[in-house]
Amino acid sequence: MDILKVSSRSNPNAVAGTISALMKSDNEVEIQAVGAGAINQTVKSIAIARGYLAPTGLDIVCIPAFTNVDIDGVERTAIKFIIETK
Amino acid sequence: MDILKVSSRSNPNAVAGTISALMKSDNEVEIQAVGAGAINQTVKSIAIARGYLAPTGLDIVCIPAFTNVDIDGVERTAIKFIIETK
Repeated sequence: MDILKVSSRSNPNAVAGTISALMKSDNEVEIQAVGAGAINQTVKSIAIARGYLAPTGLDIVCIPAFTNVDIDGVERTAIKFIIETK
Repeated sequence: MDILKVSSRSNPNAVAGTISALMKSDNEVEIQAVGAGAINQTVKSIAIARGYLAPTGLDIVCIPAFTNVDIDGVERTAIKFIIETK
């Protein structure tokens, strides 16, 4: 599965475009976000991507889960969002 | 549908407990969150609630969307999370 990494500085419209493209080609995407700012941008991106995909008949939902990621040798808790079609 | 309001100071475990109880009784919950901190707590709560509900056979997903809420007479953009079973 493709893994997208979103930061607090990611542009939600750009991330939504990537989510849409990957959903159309692969039907599943995983997004990783560390920290409140990144999680906020991810959620907005998913809401926007729903609008991009709805006219094509794809109704996406997300499944949030905890995961650990290694950042500069330090293990941190991240949120992964698995995006699927309904 | 029940509407839960989550803030940046909400306890994710407590919110997860409420989500679980409402999903068991009503099979659908809406959560409203304003701001990155509140959205972060909401996402963590949903991930925790998935763990509470999985043993009962309920596999929940969330649908994020934009909405407007009135806070002290000022209209602000909020995120609503619709929680459904898969």
